[in-house]
Amino acid sequence: MLTGRDILTTRQFTREELSAILGTAEGFESALRERKALKNLENLVVASLFFEPSTRTRLSFETAALRLSGRVVSVSEAGGSSMAKGESLADTIRTVDGYADIIVVRHPQKGAAQAAADNASHPVINAGDGTGQHPTQALLDLYTILKEKGRLSGLTLTLLGDLKNGRTVHSLSYLMALYGNRMILVSPPSLAMPPEIVAEARAAGTEVVEIPDVEAAVAESDIIYVTRVQRERFADPAEYESVKGSYVVDMRLIARAKPGVTVMHPLPRVDEIATEVDEYEGAAYFRQAHNGLPVRMALLALVSGRI
Amino acid sequence: MLTGRDILTTRQFTREELSAILGTAEGFESALRERKALKNLENLVVASLFFEPSTRTRLSFETAALRLSGRVVSVSEAGGSSMAKGESLADTIRTVDGYADIIVVRHPQKGAAQAAADNASHPVINAGDGTGQHPTQALLDLYTILKEKGRLSGLTLTLLGDLKNGRTVHSLSYLMALYGNRMILVSPPSLAMPPEIVAEARAAGTEVVEIPDVEAAVAESDIIYVTRVQRERFADPAEYESVKGSYVVDMRLIARAKPGVTVMHPLPRVDEIATEVDEYEGAAYFRQAHNGLPVRMALLALVSGRI
Amino acid sequence: MLTGRDILTTRQFTREELSAILGTAEGFESALRERKALKNLENLVVASLFFEPSTRTRLSFETAALRLSGRVVSVSEAGGSSMAKGESLADTIRTVDGYADIIVVRHPQKGAAQAAADNASHPVINAGDGTGQHPTQALLDLYTILKEKGRLSGLTLTLLGDLKNGRTVHSLSYLMALYGNRMILVSPPSLAMPPEIVAEARAAGTEVVEIPDVEAAVAESDIIYVTRVQRERFADPAEYESVKGSYVVDMRLIARAKPGVTVMHPLPRVDEIATEVDEYEGAAYFRQAHNGLPVRMALLALVSGRI
Repeated sequence: MLTGRDILTTRQFTREELSAILGTAEGFESALRERKALKNLENLVVASLFFEPSTRTRLSFETAALRLSGRVVSVSEAGGSSMAKGESLADTIRTVDGYADIIVVRHPQKGAAQAAADNASHPVINAGDGTGQHPTQALLDLYTILKEKGRLSGLTLTLLGDLKNGRTVHSLSYLMALYGNRMILVSPPSLAMPPEIVAEARAAGTEVVEIPDVEAAVAESDIIYVTRVQRERFADPAEYESVKGSYVVDMRLIARAKPGVTVMHPLPRVDEIATEVDEYEGAAYFRQAHNGLPVRMALLALVSGRI
Repeated sequence: MLTGRDILTTRQFTREELSAILGTAEGFESALRERKALKNLENLVVASLFFEPSTRTRLSFETAALRLSGRVVSVSEAGGSSMAKGESLADTIRTVDGYADIIVVRHPQKGAAQAAADNASHPVINAGDGTGQHPTQALLDLYTILKEKGRLSGLTLTLLGDLKNGRTVHSLSYLMALYGNRMILVSPPSLAMPPEIVAEARAAGTEVVEIPDVEAAVAESDIIYVTRVQRERFADPAEYESVKGSYVVDMRLIARAKPGVTVMHPLPRVDEIATEVDEYEGAAYFRQAHNGLPVRMALLALVSGRI
Repeated sequence: MLTGRDILTTRQFTREELSAILGTAEGFESALRERKALKNLENLVVASLFFEPSTRTRLSFETAALRLSGRVVSVSEAGGSSMAKGESLADTIRTVDGYADIIVVRHPQKGAAQAAADNASHPVINAGDGTGQHPTQALLDLYTILKEKGRLSGLTLTLLGDLKNGRTVHSLSYLMALYGNRMILVSPPSLAMPPEIVAEARAAGTEVVEIPDVEAAVAESDIIYVTRVQRERFADPAEYESVKGSYVVDMRLIARAKPGVTVMHPLPRVDEIATEVDEYEGAAYFRQAHNGLPVRMALLALVSGRI
């Protein structure tokens, strides 16, 4: 049902399409576990165009293509590209469109993925466009919740940390509202979730509460989704110093959380989750990263029409 | 007929060899359109060594190898290479020659491709060596003219812009003279075609005229081949300012050109062709870029002897 | 016998395991010569993670994987990696471990390969970790001696140049002692072989002698293993100036050496071997580099259990 389509934003999908993506990803995850040879992208070339570095996402997409027997040409970093010579993204994409069957694009500028899609006859998949969208991250988050919790609705989810700048939590908020869940927002005041995102979730019928106290929030949460609070986001260094310790997840916090709480993080993690938590069975962030593989395989197979 | 040969310069080819390359490229273009699986390079490894950035050319070569079922190892940029440690190109090539079956090399220094070929037992393909040669660009230009015009002779071709520094227009001039065509040169005086290139074309029986007025030139041209006039090429900035507008192709100019005129450009294009021209059906520059794929497939298949 | 194992250090191998590696490499070298299609790594993905540049080693590993029908995802240089965002190597490896079946890692820090192995469920192969280990170089050196000399014992080997900093000569010393050989060490006093490496070789029953005079050393050597004497290793520039010429291998020195002497070098070579020596039939350093291919194919096939 997604044959020939671009994947540009989380908001483009119907629930039926989301089910198809998640179901396809589950099928591929089983196939990988059983070491089945997959041929969905046989004879197809995927152009993996990363105009800003993102090792994790790039390797995940390229592995996904290769595991489906696709072939990959790869660009990483703007430094090595024609764009350094002043060429427009539109011209670059129009050229690559003549080589490849699917184009994956990561770009530092918001709107770049849409611009790429406007200039390509082949499907374009947005692998992150600056402060814009990163739909495949949102989809692997959704897939992770489904795998970890067995369902996508009726959950209480704490979004923790920098909720202002993280495109990840914005997309996740949108998707979780779609399925009917409760959300708790915990952030420093200056890094609160933008009102329009909160309004959108509420309009979809989701209960959204802001709780300043992390311990109170996690005590009633099925999932804690952690994002990093970066020093450079604060105009006033004193504010950073006063809050930084409050948004770190460690075993002391887990001990006060609802039993079985799932801890997620889009990675890379710096120090906002203590490494001691890695051993906790509800620590899902590496499984979450690994879920990028079947989810991206699903997207590649679906847009190629080879499924 | 090119089995085991190096591809180093436009001037190495007989007309018979050029026909073989163009014919092979046409066959591959049909095969791509019909989505045929091609196995010409099966079990062969192509080393794609780009010691200076050129995304377009690198992706084109690598896609060409992959579409023929070849395998690719890739280097982009000198920064990531052993050369940063002071190794000579000769030693690098001698090493890679032990890994790969075909070596594609792009290098900032003129003569580097010949030096590479001197140190390799496997075929070396020059993907551009500084101000030296870029034979695969010249071949895709020739192929584009054949596809767009249906023939390679009896055409009037305007070469427009910087004709002094562009290796592209030098190679094209040589090839077009080989087939019997008429050439019009339009450039700022300080960026005129080098006399030896003009003399060579005339010696081959080609009529070459210099016309300062772009409109007069295009009025009688079947093809306009545009190259960029770069500010940094002028010793006197005032000269640049006085000429820059004269070498821009826009729809106003197309309206004064011979009906059906074909517009070509080696890309990347900056502002020497207005984007409004992209919609004009004679705007061939993206088709030209796409033609790099079948032409490079043809060269890889021919030098490998797998055809 | 190495199925699922990490390859981290030269010292991890028994002689039986070394024989298996060398024998497997010989088999692959024959298969390559006969152009046999090899499928050992079919449907497997190798992650080639080079967090510092090393074109030679990276291309060698990637070609090895491709020649066995493996698929490769590649990172070259720290600049393009998540590590630039402050992620730990442990987290990077844990993520990649979810994508790939084998992880090849090159890293500037000693101990990085062990750290990678500690965080991966899949086999990790050390492609060099700073001043630490570079076991695949040592194995290809051993393989080269076997191919050039027809045996691994009863040989006299001169190690020449910087014997203090070269992990290559340390590993080779260990391996040659294992097989029973005689070693001559020739180096500037300040770049002498560390006493513990000498002691280790002697404890294994190897005769080790230090000879300051290069000509005397090579007169009785079957093999000269050359490493570079770098200016920046000397605290006193005057010492460098006084010794630099003494450690250059040229045809004059070869003329005074034992007839048939084999010259080895881990490459890249700068000026410590004159290019005139390249024509000498005992100059084995490019064959040595080429031997990296079958040796790395052997390691990949053995750790994957696909042999």
